[in-house]
Amino acid sequence: MNAQSTVSREALPDARALGSARTVWLTGLPSAGKTTVARALAARLAAAGRPVEVLDGDEARKVLTAGLGFSRAERDENVRRIGYVADLLSRNGVDVVCAVISPFRDARDEVRARHLESTPESPHRFVEVWVSTPVDVCAARDVKGLYARQRAGEISGLTGVDDPYEAPHTPELELRTDQLDLDECVDRIVAVLAS
Amino acid sequence: MNAQSTVSREALPDARALGSARTVWLTGLPSAGKTTVARALAARLAAAGRPVEVLDGDEARKVLTAGLGFSRAERDENVRRIGYVADLLSRNGVDVVCAVISPFRDARDEVRARHLESTPESPHRFVEVWVSTPVDVCAARDVKGLYARQRAGEISGLTGVDDPYEAPHTPELELRTDQLDLDECVDRIVAVLAS
Repeated sequence: MNAQSTVSREALPDARALGSARTVWLTGLPSAGKTTVARALAARLAAAGRPVEVLDGDEARKVLTAGLGFSRAERDENVRRIGYVADLLSRNGVDVVCAVISPFRDARDEVRARHLESTPESPHRFVEVWVSTPVDVCAARDVKGLYARQRAGEISGLTGVDDPYEAPHTPELELRTDQLDLDECVDRIVAVLAS
Repeated sequence: MNAQSTVSREALPDARALGSARTVWLTGLPSAGKTTVARALAARLAAAGRPVEVLDGDEARKVLTAGLGFSRAERDENVRRIGYVADLLSRNGVDVVCAVISPFRDARDEVRARHLESTPESPHRFVEVWVSTPVDVCAARDVKGLYARQRAGEISGLTGVDDPYEAPHTPELELRTDQLDLDECVDRIVAVLAS
């Protein structure tokens, strides 16, 4: 992401214009930029006076999803559990920003369905953002050294390399963090929230 | 619990007087009345215009703590996970009423410590209520038939019978649901919240 922003914060909607609380679900490959965008978005929402929590997949594995591995079933359970908590929070007026690889479409759609079932009157409470940074860019960033370890044969089952990633068919937003700077990424999500 | 209430709802504090959001943690034996009190308290808080969620141990086992058994380690993990979610909610302004056997003192104290660590400026956000209905009353109620099944030898590890229950040393409140009617139980909790 570049350092310079092209949209000033002052031009953005205020807390009230953002409407009722949402779950913003960032899905994408490791090192795609999910956590970075999540933290920046949460800071923006908090600065606007909105209660907000970040549920980060890596952090969640310390308590909420401790003990879960990386099989398909365990990845799905990870998504299900984080989605359950996100639903509880956002249906009570707390914005939630989830940064979770969440590679499988069915599991993400189940979280969306849970939100809809929970508050049918708020069909747009779940906002899926596909952080679609290409795998070669992610591998070059390699924030946690996973791509290098996979190449070295130390790990396997790396999403997008030797484990599947199912891209969303109709996400509310697609973000290329290699083409937009961080402020622009946040601006685009905020624009969806305000629409 | 008796049908008649001795304290009218009108005499109770309004939403604002109840202050910032809390986690009310109901601990006690099976059939002690935790879920019944939790639902009635949640209804009272909701009627006062406060956002509120009930986290019931039995319900939680469907998603949040699905797959966990009843060993000491698994019971503690159950408590830890529900406590984690309660903390997330109440630190963001959502009242949470937890109805969980939570037999072990250390696990409950860990949840209390998590709340304190999360918001040191709100030391009274975690409210432990010991639903201390005696085991013979609980066994006579036997809402889920657990006491009968234990007597018949069909199950073992029933809290308070052949599995330990460690009563709180200094709960914020003790409730004998065999001596108070339901409204009185709720009144007493609300009085603690308003104090």
